[in-house]
Amino acid sequence: METMGRHVIAELWQCDFDKLNDMDFIEKTFVDAALKSGAEVREVAFHKFAPQGVSGVVIISESHLTIHSFPEHGYASVDVYTCGDMDPTIAADYIALALGSQSSEVKELQRGMGPVGAGKTKVTVTA
Amino acid sequence: METMGRHVIAELWQCDFDKLNDMDFIEKTFVDAALKSGAEVREVAFHKFAPQGVSGVVIISESHLTIHSFPEHGYASVDVYTCGDMDPTIAADYIALALGSQSSEVKELQRGMGPVGAGKTKVTVTA
Repeated sequence: METMGRHVIAELWQCDFDKLNDMDFIEKTFVDAALKSGAEVREVAFHKFAPQGVSGVVIISESHLTIHSFPEHGYASVDVYTCGDMDPTIAADYIALALGSQSSEVKELQRGMGPVGAGKTKVTVTA
Repeated sequence: METMGRHVIAELWQCDFDKLNDMDFIEKTFVDAALKSGAEVREVAFHKFAPQGVSGVVIISESHLTIHSFPEHGYASVDVYTCGDMDPTIAADYIALALGSQSSEVKELQRGMGPVGAGKTKVTVTA
């Protein structure tokens, strides 16, 4: 199996309060996002916090999707990490639209490219 | 609840093959890593792939820890995302040691800092 992966970090702001606080809606949205991307869903785990907020993950054969929502700030912190030929932006865009995000930042990281990477990284080699 | 979080991306290379392929060991390691960091564990979901490899997540009150292991490449792709006063490097270092990683890259991202960030990000504002 290829180690190379694409990891989308999506900071979604100005989302809909009620959607960010609806665990069932978020879980369905994330499973749908995975399936629309062509992913195979393996494990689903979501948690509702009191008084508000939802955290959860969909483990797919091709890596994962996660969310932490902060309804009181209109903010959702979303990760979509895929490997193979999958495009993580399909799921990230679907999620942003579903949550009603009006302002977002999306950053994409390359994962699994080699033992020592370039750029702003801390490298530790112990042997 | 504060949106601000620290997200450690840890690319762990030259890990121990057997440990990377042992789901029970990885699950225990990740729960222990969360607890050693002072996190509160909320959900745990791990999956073993055939012929090899493990994916999994520990959802904590303070965000999440995830892994995708590729035993055949000696590689584990690990994320430790925390909010509040927690230090994600405690868990990341514990995991790297437990998996016998001999070479690693660790990058830390700031999450939840504001609606529009600086640096190499794609910004979309739809309203």
